Amino acid sequence: MRTQEQYLERLAKMKKNIFLGGEKIGRDDPRVVHASSAIRMTFELAENPEFESLLTATSHITGEKINRFTHIHQSTDDLLKKQELTRKLCHIAGGCIQRCMGCDMLNGISVTTKNVDLKHGTNYHENFLKFAKYFQENDLVGAGSQTDAKGDRLARPSEQWDPDQYLHVVERRDDGVVVRGAKLHNTMAPYADELIVVPTRMMGKDEGDWAIAFAIPADTEGVTLIAKEAFTRQREDNLKSPMSNIGDLECMTVFDDVFVPNERIFLNGETRFAGELALGFALFHRHSYTGCKPGIGDVLTGVTALLAEYNNTLKVEHVKGKLVDMICVAELVYAAGMAAAYKSTKAPSGTQVPNVIYANVGRRHAGHAIYHEAEILCDIAGGLAVTLPDSKEYNNPEIGKYVQKYVTRKEGVSPENCYRAYALAEDFLASELGATFLVAGVHGGGSPIMEDIAIWGTYDINKNINLAKNLAGIKD
Amino acid sequence: MRTQEQYLERLAKMKKNIFLGGEKIGRDDPRVVHASSAIRMTFELAENPEFESLLTATSHITGEKINRFTHIHQSTDDLLKKQELTRKLCHIAGGCIQRCMGCDMLNGISVTTKNVDLKHGTNYHENFLKFAKYFQENDLVGAGSQTDAKGDRLARPSEQWDPDQYLHVVERRDDGVVVRGAKLHNTMAPYADELIVVPTRMMGKDEGDWAIAFAIPADTEGVTLIAKEAFTRQREDNLKSPMSNIGDLECMTVFDDVFVPNERIFLNGETRFAGELALGFALFHRHSYTGCKPGIGDVLTGVTALLAEYNNTLKVEHVKGKLVDMICVAELVYAAGMAAAYKSTKAPSGTQVPNVIYANVGRRHAGHAIYHEAEILCDIAGGLAVTLPDSKEYNNPEIGKYVQKYVTRKEGVSPENCYRAYALAEDFLASELGATFLVAGVHGGGSPIMEDIAIWGTYDINKNINLAKNLAGIKD
Amino acid sequence: MRTQEQYLERLAKMKKNIFLGGEKIGRDDPRVVHASSAIRMTFELAENPEFESLLTATSHITGEKINRFTHIHQSTDDLLKKQELTRKLCHIAGGCIQRCMGCDMLNGISVTTKNVDLKHGTNYHENFLKFAKYFQENDLVGAGSQTDAKGDRLARPSEQWDPDQYLHVVERRDDGVVVRGAKLHNTMAPYADELIVVPTRMMGKDEGDWAIAFAIPADTEGVTLIAKEAFTRQREDNLKSPMSNIGDLECMTVFDDVFVPNERIFLNGETRFAGELALGFALFHRHSYTGCKPGIGDVLTGVTALLAEYNNTLKVEHVKGKLVDMICVAELVYAAGMAAAYKSTKAPSGTQVPNVIYANVGRRHAGHAIYHEAEILCDIAGGLAVTLPDSKEYNNPEIGKYVQKYVTRKEGVSPENCYRAYALAEDFLASELGATFLVAGVHGGGSPIMEDIAIWGTYDINKNINLAKNLAGIKD
Amino acid sequence: MRTQEQYLERLAKMKKNIFLGGEKIGRDDPRVVHASSAIRMTFELAENPEFESLLTATSHITGEKINRFTHIHQSTDDLLKKQELTRKLCHIAGGCIQRCMGCDMLNGISVTTKNVDLKHGTNYHENFLKFAKYFQENDLVGAGSQTDAKGDRLARPSEQWDPDQYLHVVERRDDGVVVRGAKLHNTMAPYADELIVVPTRMMGKDEGDWAIAFAIPADTEGVTLIAKEAFTRQREDNLKSPMSNIGDLECMTVFDDVFVPNERIFLNGETRFAGELALGFALFHRHSYTGCKPGIGDVLTGVTALLAEYNNTLKVEHVKGKLVDMICVAELVYAAGMAAAYKSTKAPSGTQVPNVIYANVGRRHAGHAIYHEAEILCDIAGGLAVTLPDSKEYNNPEIGKYVQKYVTRKEGVSPENCYRAYALAEDFLASELGATFLVAGVHGGGSPIMEDIAIWGTYDINKNINLAKNLAGIKD
Repeated sequence: MRTQEQYLERLAKMKKNIFLGGEKIGRDDPRVVHASSAIRMTFELAENPEFESLLTATSHITGEKINRFTHIHQSTDDLLKKQELTRKLCHIAGGCIQRCMGCDMLNGISVTTKNVDLKHGTNYHENFLKFAKYFQENDLVGAGSQTDAKGDRLARPSEQWDPDQYLHVVERRDDGVVVRGAKLHNTMAPYADELIVVPTRMMGKDEGDWAIAFAIPADTEGVTLIAKEAFTRQREDNLKSPMSNIGDLECMTVFDDVFVPNERIFLNGETRFAGELALGFALFHRHSYTGCKPGIGDVLTGVTALLAEYNNTLKVEHVKGKLVDMICVAELVYAAGMAAAYKSTKAPSGTQVPNVIYANVGRRHAGHAIYHEAEILCDIAGGLAVTLPDSKEYNNPEIGKYVQKYVTRKEGVSPENCYRAYALAEDFLASELGATFLVAGVHGGGSPIMEDIAIWGTYDINKNINLAKNLAGIKD
Repeated sequence: MRTQEQYLERLAKMKKNIFLGGEKIGRDDPRVVHASSAIRMTFELAENPEFESLLTATSHITGEKINRFTHIHQSTDDLLKKQELTRKLCHIAGGCIQRCMGCDMLNGISVTTKNVDLKHGTNYHENFLKFAKYFQENDLVGAGSQTDAKGDRLARPSEQWDPDQYLHVVERRDDGVVVRGAKLHNTMAPYADELIVVPTRMMGKDEGDWAIAFAIPADTEGVTLIAKEAFTRQREDNLKSPMSNIGDLECMTVFDDVFVPNERIFLNGETRFAGELALGFALFHRHSYTGCKPGIGDVLTGVTALLAEYNNTLKVEHVKGKLVDMICVAELVYAAGMAAAYKSTKAPSGTQVPNVIYANVGRRHAGHAIYHEAEILCDIAGGLAVTLPDSKEYNNPEIGKYVQKYVTRKEGVSPENCYRAYALAEDFLASELGATFLVAGVHGGGSPIMEDIAIWGTYDINKNINLAKNLAGIKD
Repeated sequence: MRTQEQYLERLAKMKKNIFLGGEKIGRDDPRVVHASSAIRMTFELAENPEFESLLTATSHITGEKINRFTHIHQSTDDLLKKQELTRKLCHIAGGCIQRCMGCDMLNGISVTTKNVDLKHGTNYHENFLKFAKYFQENDLVGAGSQTDAKGDRLARPSEQWDPDQYLHVVERRDDGVVVRGAKLHNTMAPYADELIVVPTRMMGKDEGDWAIAFAIPADTEGVTLIAKEAFTRQREDNLKSPMSNIGDLECMTVFDDVFVPNERIFLNGETRFAGELALGFALFHRHSYTGCKPGIGDVLTGVTALLAEYNNTLKVEHVKGKLVDMICVAELVYAAGMAAAYKSTKAPSGTQVPNVIYANVGRRHAGHAIYHEAEILCDIAGGLAVTLPDSKEYNNPEIGKYVQKYVTRKEGVSPENCYRAYALAEDFLASELGATFLVAGVHGGGSPIMEDIAIWGTYDINKNINLAKNLAGIKD
Repeated sequence: MRTQEQYLERLAKMKKNIFLGGEKIGRDDPRVVHASSAIRMTFELAENPEFESLLTATSHITGEKINRFTHIHQSTDDLLKKQELTRKLCHIAGGCIQRCMGCDMLNGISVTTKNVDLKHGTNYHENFLKFAKYFQENDLVGAGSQTDAKGDRLARPSEQWDPDQYLHVVERRDDGVVVRGAKLHNTMAPYADELIVVPTRMMGKDEGDWAIAFAIPADTEGVTLIAKEAFTRQREDNLKSPMSNIGDLECMTVFDDVFVPNERIFLNGETRFAGELALGFALFHRHSYTGCKPGIGDVLTGVTALLAEYNNTLKVEHVKGKLVDMICVAELVYAAGMAAAYKSTKAPSGTQVPNVIYANVGRRHAGHAIYHEAEILCDIAGGLAVTLPDSKEYNNPEIGKYVQKYVTRKEGVSPENCYRAYALAEDFLASELGATFLVAGVHGGGSPIMEDIAIWGTYDINKNINLAKNLAGIKD
């Protein structure tokens, strides 16, 4: 297992292929390092006794102690621990912990590679196990790369005016394949060691070139990472906070004729399994959301309650009612994730798979609620969430006293603490990072409408219809 | 364990003290027998191999096999089984299974009697165990009697213009107490063997006379049961359905100077525990709701989907979306109940107690959703839910053919099946029983605002505030 | 203009063709008379000085003073008065005023008959004017008959397995046509003088037989009215209330080869206008809903507030908040109706036509809110809405005292008044009439999804797209 | 009437008293000029024939043609024009038009000064008329300054630990008063000519020093403007858009012992009228919101529809349904504003006052909906709203081609237009200005809970209670 320093050192050695703010930059760029704070936490806390039992696991491949974010879940307990771990880390990170995506990708691939092999006599699961062993032993960070550009949303991959709108194989060689396309919304790819790529949807029988899954180092020849930064508001040093250190780089990851060697391929043309793999990753990822969404919800509830406390409105009935609303969102989503773990099943690969209905029901509820949670924070915080004077004004020798005097709320709370509380609300409601949390809250891991589809596709509605028929006295 | 015949025979022998429709009736009145159908099912299915493992348990008092509805939960598994059992029985009953209330009351009392004894050196838990043994051995049915009339809702029990608005002790004797008051919304009391009575709220130090809990036979001298019937629409025989056999009697249970012997008293003046007992019963009952609300939700989803199938609209996007909405309500509530079981704890009495937050979060979500579920059924069913001609018209030799012709929907479904499907929708949307399900869905076991209060009172909001303070860099 | 006695007398003379409760009955049956109470009010109050200016108008055909429910709107003021009138009558009727439907039908037909004539050189508008004159002079009551049985909802009228699932012409004669089919959810048809029939949807070019509109007396040969009653709960005489007198008969109106003479035909095969007429009636009817839904909403708000007052919870924050919710629904819907009137336009026929967007937006908001309004009433009323003992128990010499004692709420309000308040809540939440209000609130005049379609079909979304393009600097 | 150049010139001559980004700046600072774009539009378009009739009015004081934003409404038509004007300007400004606030303040003051004079024989209305004449003749821009810092929200102004938490008089002189305090969320104050100050709430009898209203130039001695900028994302020149020119400066306006001469005082100690004035301004401002919220809603609907068009999902049922949701919000709010105008009344001052219920119902609906509208835009736009590569990457000679290729959606829409559409979504969902729109959408003009209070305080709930009593047969 690595330290965060080792993680950063390895990144620094990688080939420059990131573009940000008009420049081509290396992974030692301060913005990349800043954005990696949540990931670094997953290394740092693995040594912390409070987190060790959650953050580490025993590899089912090597029997070694590994970081849980590289683990293939073997039991209900593994799933419960992943969920709990995610919630707790989000409490400290103030938002997305970012490293779950690669882990969820590995787990999804573990299941489908086995299933493809069983059906087609292929060798993908061996490829997977070899890769997973390497990943675990080197304590790597993987970026799950799934969402294609998609072009015309009513056209299938093979029907697009530009076939690259979905990533696909453009050349087949004895030693591997060459792929072209792009993966969008590729969170944290700029500070990942590996890119783990899977299809974004079901494929038709004639769409074998689009049914491709693989993993490659993030600085592979032909890969370009077009990054987009999302940070909190800048503050002067004396008003910086742990939240100031949080950040995120989103990414448009372009594959311009990238070679993928055979041993790194996990699916290649077995169209029937493209959808299974797409949904398989989504399932593990939605289960992760039943940990992180409550975690972020807890934080949003906390910011809201903190401002209510400082304004002295924590006892007001409608304020309490709105806080209970937020609590209930978090706990319902968490309960759904627990249920998904308790009702999980074992795949042929041995991987423990969360229950589809509960994982989706939980993620969907979170997705439907996130803007409402922001609305409540906005409601209770009041206008200062956007009108708070900048920290430069706070520190201004001429008029800083005014800022300090008029942001202060109830007696006994210092101006600085009041300012810090409002600044935190501003970070959530009015910073680029806050906006990213909201959009990710809706779309990350699949928008609510995708969960609708997953639930409707899995749920046995005929059982309910039969309950009704029995009660109605209908005999078919 | 009794058969349903034995249950009815015992009822028939009880003293007449029920009033219904202007008459004083016995428990062999056909309306009472009709309404008891759900209870009877709990006897009948106990012998059914499919239900036996759910419907029976081993008494922790006697070690004997007992009906689970008389059991004191000893483990997480007991709580999970109660939840699952409740959902499954509701599938068959088409609604409230009714017998959980007495069971939840016993469990609540098991916990508090022990706690009072530990604090005050009293003997209530022995009373309880003796009563529970008798209850289990005779496989009895108990009506949980909690909600007082309450009078002026802003006045405390001792401040009421009429002190009887909350049931209280009016006389103390060596061998027991005499009580006066009424318990409202006392579902199924007319076909219960025993009334189990607890306070409805917290009591102040000077409200010892209102801090009273006990159990007595339902035909005890001084007890009057003023019943109110709720049945589905009447249908002619050939169009009757299992749903036609379902019913409910609600009850205003009046205690006009009723003597309660010492051995049947579970709380008597220890005001500090009145609230614990009120909430304790509510907690077990809210956990039961995490089983029955999904059960009823499954049925409502089934009726809705059945009508969509017959109308040939089951593939229409907004119809599917609304069905998914209903599915998600049921599964989120069920997940919360599972979480409450998995996060349950053992009370000093040995009783397994569901987690307060999860049980309340689940019940609350169900309570907020029930009218919306009815709205969806109404939306998909269309106007026939209230304009469906009566079964007499269906059977009319002159114009029955018209009814049959014009209630028929897609080809291949018989007129009778179409009629039956709409009749079932009508039972839910436009019968007295359907109305009772809606109102009970909001208020039964405590209205959503009561869950708000329970959640706010239990949840540690300071933990969230501290998360926010940490992120904001606030050091107190 | 007629008195209510004259109205009833004319009904009594009509041929028996109503079926209810297994019998064939005349229009002097007590249930028919009971159900006609709202209609009767429209005659009675026309003489009341307070209502006269609203309830009467000047015929644009004859210049005579007529009942406004027979009037063809000629101005914005006419539309505003219709809306205000409807709201005020609903306050007294406690629900649907029922007579607007025929009026809305006349107005819709006035517009389309002219448009068809202008396009096809037909003579329908003359037919219409002749009929309208007769209707006004005799102060008639018309039942708008629109909704067909519809069979398979994904099949067009001409594709149905049974062609009668949509009413259509089965024979064409020199002097008229013969029609077959049924109109469902045909509110108040059993106590209407005339049936006014229009298509329920757009028709294809080959569906000329289904593009038929006409008016005939309700007891025409071949017409059968299969009625369905919806009344409030029965109460003993001393507890009857104005609400006890309210009722409704819904109807399945069957046309089994009914002859319609040429002069009563308003559309016959001009398929292109079938949809216009269907939507035209709907438009006037949705505008009526912007009057009645606020009216019923005012009543529901009143019942809720009354119970809060009696329980002494009218000052509690969440109670006030919920009442404000209800107020806002009513006033937003009413405002939309006012806007529809102020933005109305004149059709070629001279009829004043409400704005499509505002009428639909208003009706849709009401439709989405009605179950939520019931939920709030249920929430504030509490369980007694379904557990209230019957009036026979209230009057029982032995135990009536208990009922009276324990339904009483705050000091100073008599037991009878408390009982009456709860009984009213029960009428809305748990009677057949209350259920009908809810279902009609969703579906009457077109379910919310129909308003979605009307709004989307009318609204110029490209104007909004162009606003966005301008702001984005997009030049096509 | 001024040109925008004259407006800017006058600003440039004002004394430097603005602080922004750590500096003390003048009103010719580019950020101030940038932020004033919406205000400048109100000068520029007054000469545009399309807007002239809306943007100008005839002064009731001088009879001269004036900018409508300086007008005192004299008729229903004035109110309707203000509403329509506001909506149309927001279409072009892409958001808040900013100049309504000063206008609403003038109108509120016109009413209350007259009422105070009538009651107390004071001279405030003359002060007002003189100021209004000067304001109109010089075509000035006023910043409405109302919201105090408020400190402890449960303490009254006179009970605060710091009396300056509400602005108040600290010294009384013969020629005027000296005031101290601050007004927060003081939108556009940095580019206003005048500050118009009123109380933020009702005052108690002993709070005369807080019952103070006046107008002074924004650069008066002792006034400090602590500004906070809110702009859209920065783009390179070739990708700038009209939206790039929009902006806003919020402000904490500090009054540190500022002298106000007698002739500029509109209220001074008449505590009973402090609340009237606070609510009076709010009423006019909430009516303005019934114009601007639909205007911004139209734009949000447009951005959403534009992205759906480019993605080719404009025909998908759930997308249409969500767009209809947005349309309905805008039109319901607009209808409420129209109703407020049509039901307006004339105050003793001659000012036309919108109906309180309708103005509040409309504003409240908008406030409850704004986050939901953003959610829909986010839902339909997808993740690119936050992951869109920066314009520098779009223009990058090495990898710009990738950005252009993979942001392109359906065939036939250029990469630039696709990019521009997503950039606009980003401006709304993920820029500081977008965040300001959301927070202002909730709180501007009073949060929804303030409208609850205004509605509850105005609405005659007893009328509804009496409707219910009549129906229940209750005679008091």
